[in-house]
Amino acid sequence: MTEKKKKTTIILFSGDYDKAMAAYIIANGAAAYDHEVTIFHTFWGLNALRKDQPLELKKGFLEKMFAKMMPRGADKMGLSNMNFAGMGPKMIKHVMKKHNAMTLPQLIDMAQEQDVKLIACTMTMDLLGLQQKELLDEIEYAGVAAYLADAEEGNVNLFI
Amino acid sequence: MTEKKKKTTIILFSGDYDKAMAAYIIANGAAAYDHEVTIFHTFWGLNALRKDQPLELKKGFLEKMFAKMMPRGADKMGLSNMNFAGMGPKMIKHVMKKHNAMTLPQLIDMAQEQDVKLIACTMTMDLLGLQQKELLDEIEYAGVAAYLADAEEGNVNLFI
Amino acid sequence: MTEKKKKTTIILFSGDYDKAMAAYIIANGAAAYDHEVTIFHTFWGLNALRKDQPLELKKGFLEKMFAKMMPRGADKMGLSNMNFAGMGPKMIKHVMKKHNAMTLPQLIDMAQEQDVKLIACTMTMDLLGLQQKELLDEIEYAGVAAYLADAEEGNVNLFI
Repeated sequence: MTEKKKKTTIILFSGDYDKAMAAYIIANGAAAYDHEVTIFHTFWGLNALRKDQPLELKKGFLEKMFAKMMPRGADKMGLSNMNFAGMGPKMIKHVMKKHNAMTLPQLIDMAQEQDVKLIACTMTMDLLGLQQKELLDEIEYAGVAAYLADAEEGNVNLFI
Repeated sequence: MTEKKKKTTIILFSGDYDKAMAAYIIANGAAAYDHEVTIFHTFWGLNALRKDQPLELKKGFLEKMFAKMMPRGADKMGLSNMNFAGMGPKMIKHVMKKHNAMTLPQLIDMAQEQDVKLIACTMTMDLLGLQQKELLDEIEYAGVAAYLADAEEGNVNLFI
Repeated sequence: MTEKKKKTTIILFSGDYDKAMAAYIIANGAAAYDHEVTIFHTFWGLNALRKDQPLELKKGFLEKMFAKMMPRGADKMGLSNMNFAGMGPKMIKHVMKKHNAMTLPQLIDMAQEQDVKLIACTMTMDLLGLQQKELLDEIEYAGVAAYLADAEEGNVNLFI
């Protein structure tokens, strides 16, 4: 095949469980339709890539506070809506289980299996004091220039 | 005319009155400029398509709770900002009336008159237990594959 | 040079400091890569363009209330996440200073120097009772039609 692949490029800025789900559902769909897919995780969207175990790392005071205050991994993220002191996410996870829908961690696994390129924004990592060993394995690290290089050729570009 | 029409495809994820207004203003503008326009309503964005009367429907417990907790139709949605226990939407609606601006329900009517394709995401309907008779008439039902087919040809693709 | 420039067109709807930062970082990046860049400020995104001094202006009651309730300029905006009664923005500004990252007002200055086209949405200004003298100098004023004209030729279109 010589035809150029279509491209889908998503910026995941949000740290909300439901928005991250939407991003990964679109990404997995596009990968299944043979698009080249990139998710560029920036700001709170980086939380989706965090490992769920706390690590003993040398960090400054503010970086420790950020690390503590931000949800550690996809499974800990809250909803953008109807959060109700955490009841919302439990309800959503309950109905998802009932309907055999994929959870966010499963959607992320699937994206990695489908070769969706997962990028962590290095500028935000720096700012929030996040280190590579705190994030999932086999992701890439880049800045806004890499995002733009992908997006300017993109057929579907979204900011979520 | 043989030239291909331009395409605008909007995912309405948000259940906020102001964001839905923005989506429908862009959609109506694009339709007026002769674009083919699709709004794909997913997650909380489905609330914009709900009828405002409650229906007696057979539902499980969680589905009933979702139905109760989520706003029933465009007119009941809150603001993304300055909600202040509901005072914000009242103020906004007040200034909109004063300026003869179109309300969200009017913008949705106009979109339907201009043949904007309104799609409800079947996966979310399933998850939240929403049934077709709870949503506006003359809308379409589809999943992420249909969205991608539209969006990959799109000139303007937005996630709202 | 005869080749057509690539285009990046961003709608800044959000009034959150972090989201506005993301918008301006992408815009400045794209301008550095020689894109033609437009940021169309609508709804709460207009707050990023407000001057920080209050002006004595003739306004109706609701317009005065909006003017008071909405943050006056980029430096006063809150975070989309972890706002914690204002502690979040202080922490973010603190780490930004520590890392020599550019603040939002600096990013806006840079965008103006790089000829990023900053547009204020006239429909929202009308609705919220904002007047041109309340906004930064050297910005443009337009409506949804102008946005669409830019966006339909855009390579990267985002709604933030």
